[in-house]
Amino acid sequence: MYGHQSAALLPASVPQFFTRARGALLWDADGAEYIDYLCAYGPSLLGYAFGPVEEAAARQQASGDAMTGPSPVMVELAEALVSMVSHADWAMFCKNGSDATSMAVMVARAATGRSKILCAENTYHGAAAWSTPRLAGTLPEDRAHIVYYRHHDPDSLRGALQRHAGDVAGVMATSFRHETFRDQEPAPAEFAWAARRLCDEYGALLILDDVRAGFRLARDSSWEVLGVRPDLSAWGKCIANGHAISALLGSDTARAGAASIFVTGSFWFAATAMAAGLETLRHIRETDYLEQIALRGARLRQGLDEIAARRGFCLAQTGPPQMPQILFENDPDFRIGYGFTDACIRRGLYLHPFHNMFLSAAHDDGIIDRSLEAADAAMADLATRCTDLEPHPGALARLGLGR
Amino acid sequence: MYGHQSAALLPASVPQFFTRARGALLWDADGAEYIDYLCAYGPSLLGYAFGPVEEAAARQQASGDAMTGPSPVMVELAEALVSMVSHADWAMFCKNGSDATSMAVMVARAATGRSKILCAENTYHGAAAWSTPRLAGTLPEDRAHIVYYRHHDPDSLRGALQRHAGDVAGVMATSFRHETFRDQEPAPAEFAWAARRLCDEYGALLILDDVRAGFRLARDSSWEVLGVRPDLSAWGKCIANGHAISALLGSDTARAGAASIFVTGSFWFAATAMAAGLETLRHIRETDYLEQIALRGARLRQGLDEIAARRGFCLAQTGPPQMPQILFENDPDFRIGYGFTDACIRRGLYLHPFHNMFLSAAHDDGIIDRSLEAADAAMADLATRCTDLEPHPGALARLGLGR
Repeated sequence: MYGHQSAALLPASVPQFFTRARGALLWDADGAEYIDYLCAYGPSLLGYAFGPVEEAAARQQASGDAMTGPSPVMVELAEALVSMVSHADWAMFCKNGSDATSMAVMVARAATGRSKILCAENTYHGAAAWSTPRLAGTLPEDRAHIVYYRHHDPDSLRGALQRHAGDVAGVMATSFRHETFRDQEPAPAEFAWAARRLCDEYGALLILDDVRAGFRLARDSSWEVLGVRPDLSAWGKCIANGHAISALLGSDTARAGAASIFVTGSFWFAATAMAAGLETLRHIRETDYLEQIALRGARLRQGLDEIAARRGFCLAQTGPPQMPQILFENDPDFRIGYGFTDACIRRGLYLHPFHNMFLSAAHDDGIIDRSLEAADAAMADLATRCTDLEPHPGALARLGLGR
Repeated sequence: MYGHQSAALLPASVPQFFTRARGALLWDADGAEYIDYLCAYGPSLLGYAFGPVEEAAARQQASGDAMTGPSPVMVELAEALVSMVSHADWAMFCKNGSDATSMAVMVARAATGRSKILCAENTYHGAAAWSTPRLAGTLPEDRAHIVYYRHHDPDSLRGALQRHAGDVAGVMATSFRHETFRDQEPAPAEFAWAARRLCDEYGALLILDDVRAGFRLARDSSWEVLGVRPDLSAWGKCIANGHAISALLGSDTARAGAASIFVTGSFWFAATAMAAGLETLRHIRETDYLEQIALRGARLRQGLDEIAARRGFCLAQTGPPQMPQILFENDPDFRIGYGFTDACIRRGLYLHPFHNMFLSAAHDDGIIDRSLEAADAAMADLATRCTDLEPHPGALARLGLGR
């Protein structure tokens, strides 16, 4: 297995193949049931197999999906997104997050006639050659015009803009800092304001990568609460509750650039995922899914902290409660975290040892109760095995701690 | 509208939005019915909404689609493809053709430690920055290591390999030459043999782009009939009869390279399109869909030639009968072709004035009969308007004939 769903870097108990998903639950190929805190790494927002979205998708599928042209549902979906996302004046659809971020790079270059794209160091913007985290198969030219600034550091960003003044097409930012193997970090308002101001000052487009966090933090672009509107925003993951679609949204400043590039894909205009998206957006607008997910995330966080204290562990729980990162303090090679995750998975609780997780609206109080019970048992077990834990060889290699 | 489904370059009568598709038929947003010779630009191989594939997809969708890991159906699909495609020892899945061709480029570079990819001039390998036909938004660095050779010209290919000896990672080739606005051209066996021999001589991987033609020319890689096996082949379009999935297949020579790169996408491992693909492959193996499509394509071609002769036109019909290109002789600015297409579309026959078309297994004799009737009426009409035809401004611009 390749890519982000490979179990090679995970504890030995983690299953590689799954046959069924419903609500907050997942069943592996051997029939074992899990409470799933990955939500397909984001796509399940309202819960797996969410009835109203599945019905809308099935209706559209019976009528037409991939056709010789798009369906009118494409226009409805674009209008829905533009009405919900304050900065957006137009929408273009594609399939995966990498399509949307790569398209943002092309639009920024076309709109400005400039080359450089500024990215925060070590930030994942998808697995295209210009951004994939592993360099195998890529060339220096793929990132010749990618310039890195220090995360959430206005001075570093300003320095990069100054060094390349007149040639910066766009500044990429993420909703919040969500790297693997480390604590998550909300975007400081001061950084977001500075990014907007600096982009205006240097004539660069501000691009917000909302692929991972979009609609899990807000019913708008994730920086809207900070009062900052990007020129372009990349969306994906959950905008159609699991159906394959992503989007690039833009403001009028980027419209001519967007209209000038040639991007396409055989399945980019397929109607079924768009109908699913339209129904997903309706639930986003009309229900309290967002507040519920945040509440349940907070309950989980508090419960885990209490269990850890009782069992003699100290957790580092970061990230928004809807997208928790659960690490252990004093665990430099992550052996405690791997041990905990392993013990949880053996008890039907699918947690991740180094990647941010995701809650869905199907993670109700009953699911949280069951999760805390399993976590308590796992931590009790972990406490008895603490001195026997070994670090994971893959994790050591990733951390540069290979022995 | 952006991309290949934009109606901006097409005759005024061409509808932009469609609501329904069934078999060989398509309905636009105003309710008008068309016999569709684009098949969604390839994806519909067995006909739109083909029952057995839709049933398999719906069964999988009810069970699980995008989950936290892949379904076992991914293994079954990989095994099915590897058993059908002679050169293939492994398979990786993605969503669109561009994903598969871009992944091929990365694998070739990783496998060889070299940089250069040789492509035939003007060939479409997808809309990623290294290959999109319009340069807006791209940088010279995106194609710094793409080297162009003359189509089907072994001497040109040899020259390019010699000039970059020791640094050629891969040679891209297409099933057949299928550029827009020109006659199509089958791959000469001599060229295919030379490409294989030269790749071996210079240590480059031979990459066959079968995205457009795969499984419409053969039940194997398209060059298998020529006795030539590539090291990598890119697939997409119809391998799941319209469900969104593409694939890179490779031989063992490229296995380590493929395993070394990091590529992924939120929806690349989604199970529904894989279940649809498995059922599509079963029909490819077990039915005479291929012979039927070729027969119907030949009937259409012969019928159109007879009509044209009777109406005083001379057609240039090229490409395999399953993927016809229908142009007019002595039509340098394509005004006759546009006029014909326009007249056909007004009669419910959706033809394309400059892009290769696609037949599906649903294009039965009744559909061919109706198509020929409509084409006859369109050509009769065209004969009366021949002196009034104007060239399409978009086509003129594309052809560099702007006035």
